[in-house]
Amino acid sequence: MGKTGKENEGMTNIRLREDGLAVVILDQSLLPGRMEYLEAATPEEMYDAIAGLKVRGAPAIGIFAAYCMAVLARRESVRIAEGARDGGTGGAAELLGVMKKHGDHLRTSRPTAVNLSWAVERVLESAEKAYAAETEKAGVYIIADAMMKEAKAIHEEDIAMCRAISEYGLTLIKDGDGILTHCNAGPLATSRYGTALGPILLGNERGMDFRVFADETRPLLQGARLTAYELQQAGVDVTLICDNMASMVMKNGWVQACFVGCDRVAANGDTANKIGTSAVAILAKHYGIPFYVLGPTSTVDLDCASGEEIPIELRKPGEIREMFYGEPVAPEGVKCYNPAFDVTDSSLITAIVTEKGICRPPFTESLAKVKLEGVCGI
Amino acid sequence: MGKTGKENEGMTNIRLREDGLAVVILDQSLLPGRMEYLEAATPEEMYDAIAGLKVRGAPAIGIFAAYCMAVLARRESVRIAEGARDGGTGGAAELLGVMKKHGDHLRTSRPTAVNLSWAVERVLESAEKAYAAETEKAGVYIIADAMMKEAKAIHEEDIAMCRAISEYGLTLIKDGDGILTHCNAGPLATSRYGTALGPILLGNERGMDFRVFADETRPLLQGARLTAYELQQAGVDVTLICDNMASMVMKNGWVQACFVGCDRVAANGDTANKIGTSAVAILAKHYGIPFYVLGPTSTVDLDCASGEEIPIELRKPGEIREMFYGEPVAPEGVKCYNPAFDVTDSSLITAIVTEKGICRPPFTESLAKVKLEGVCGI
Repeated sequence: MGKTGKENEGMTNIRLREDGLAVVILDQSLLPGRMEYLEAATPEEMYDAIAGLKVRGAPAIGIFAAYCMAVLARRESVRIAEGARDGGTGGAAELLGVMKKHGDHLRTSRPTAVNLSWAVERVLESAEKAYAAETEKAGVYIIADAMMKEAKAIHEEDIAMCRAISEYGLTLIKDGDGILTHCNAGPLATSRYGTALGPILLGNERGMDFRVFADETRPLLQGARLTAYELQQAGVDVTLICDNMASMVMKNGWVQACFVGCDRVAANGDTANKIGTSAVAILAKHYGIPFYVLGPTSTVDLDCASGEEIPIELRKPGEIREMFYGEPVAPEGVKCYNPAFDVTDSSLITAIVTEKGICRPPFTESLAKVKLEGVCGI
Repeated sequence: MGKTGKENEGMTNIRLREDGLAVVILDQSLLPGRMEYLEAATPEEMYDAIAGLKVRGAPAIGIFAAYCMAVLARRESVRIAEGARDGGTGGAAELLGVMKKHGDHLRTSRPTAVNLSWAVERVLESAEKAYAAETEKAGVYIIADAMMKEAKAIHEEDIAMCRAISEYGLTLIKDGDGILTHCNAGPLATSRYGTALGPILLGNERGMDFRVFADETRPLLQGARLTAYELQQAGVDVTLICDNMASMVMKNGWVQACFVGCDRVAANGDTANKIGTSAVAILAKHYGIPFYVLGPTSTVDLDCASGEEIPIELRKPGEIREMFYGEPVAPEGVKCYNPAFDVTDSSLITAIVTEKGICRPPFTESLAKVKLEGVCGI
């Protein structure tokens, strides 16, 4: 992978405050109308940030939760140390106990977000390791430092993963290409580069020009609110379209590749992603345009044989009936079918881009290899 | 064509008030939130009804304008007759003159609506014919009656056309079928049955059960606001979906046919219709579902060789950026591409259903035959 010039720092969605006693996030619930940063320093502020969708996207929630645990550990360390005559050494067990409670509380802010529990657990384990290594001599500050180190590692791993996906994805497009994307798999949902938007942002940093078409992505408009915003902020040429305009944009010859993220990839390559993704893939095939799925190997689920085994979340009709403002546009009580995801058949997917390389058909073989051996045949 | 049972009277969008001195319309601009009827009796009220989209859909505008002219002729006749000593006979020329002015005014309410000018012209011609036949002896009431007769003929012709399209379309589906439709080509836009919704409403009257999936149809939501409303009112099982959910609904096996309207059909069968129609056709082909276009032979344009010759209206970005409420959901100033229509390639169309029969491929031959000889090879 090559060297980069100016890094994509502008869109940093999660960072530690300079004194290390608060997590600073870009409040996603106000985007794109207002770009406001928010400091979370107390357990309540942290809980509300997740529950109130001020931070969203599974990887971003994990990174945020990890920093929250580390910040709370620092604050509790100061409190415990100040109250103890031995300089805090004897308070290590107390710190571990109180941090477990903080973790349990934070975890309930969005119970279905897998990355949230995973990150909380990982930071708590680092604390236990530090405690075990030093036994009773381990001071509270040593444990808090270990937790901060783990939180930073989680963040850096996500950046590295997005960066690797971006580098591999960038080999699939060339300067001047038109790219169509659906929903949002950018820096706001992950770390610095995102997955589906990663190659575009990375190429843009290197002076390449792309013309991106962003599906607005009904019903929750992640494309209009977040993708268009992220690309506009980065100075990428972005055009917002309604989902039903993708066919026309492709027919016009404006699209050379489709890039989408993924929520779960089955062993045979069938891919669950935001509702509407399968339609983009079918249109792309019709018009002879390559269709790429981008995501970490952690989303590849070898225990899931095909897309038929992936359960699809059905959401409330109000999201369709009331558009985005809680005001009805459809007749009262009209039935709605509102699946949050759909499954794109593997036969429609040109390649699946992971942080370990690009998997191509037959996916049953290439995905097993990347998961079990960590290598791709590119 | 068979006999019908209970007629679809509930959704009458345009009718004459019992005294013949006003046109009563269902105010489409308030749907689906409020179902209010509106009386247009003065030139100003009539103009505002069209300009304010209280009545919309090219055929519906034509029918409304024709009745408006007839109503104004009655009112002017009374005024002229009351002011004249000879019982109104001498006022015929005055009536013709004032009606031309009314027609010119009404015509400007939506200058691009072809049916509007056509209907105004047709009613005025009927007045001139009545005047010429009786010369100076033609009383104002005779002329006004001729205009009312012509307006009713325009309305009845549209009903008959929609009815014929509905009968032919109904032969393509069977009891229990799932049908997907895009945008709105129902009674509100035309007369009693509509075109794309006609077979469904007609079959429903005959006790057949259909399960209809209505694309909401971004950006202006005709599917959510009007199609879902019309079907719900008629007691048809309708499910509203976002446009990007059509693929999943088809994949689930819930759709046996797609029915859409048309704005212009080229000589080779390429069909311009509401944006997103071509995507529905591509999805239908992918899933092996027949895709039918329904519309009168007047929309078949033999002078237009293919879809490439059909100009596509581009609309303002605000319709996408501000959803439906004038409130932004996308970043300020973000570029949008907002075509109002797209062209569906004739190779994706199973058949084109007209009031004269069902045209099948090769369309170049079947469409020429139906236009020039008025017959279809079904």
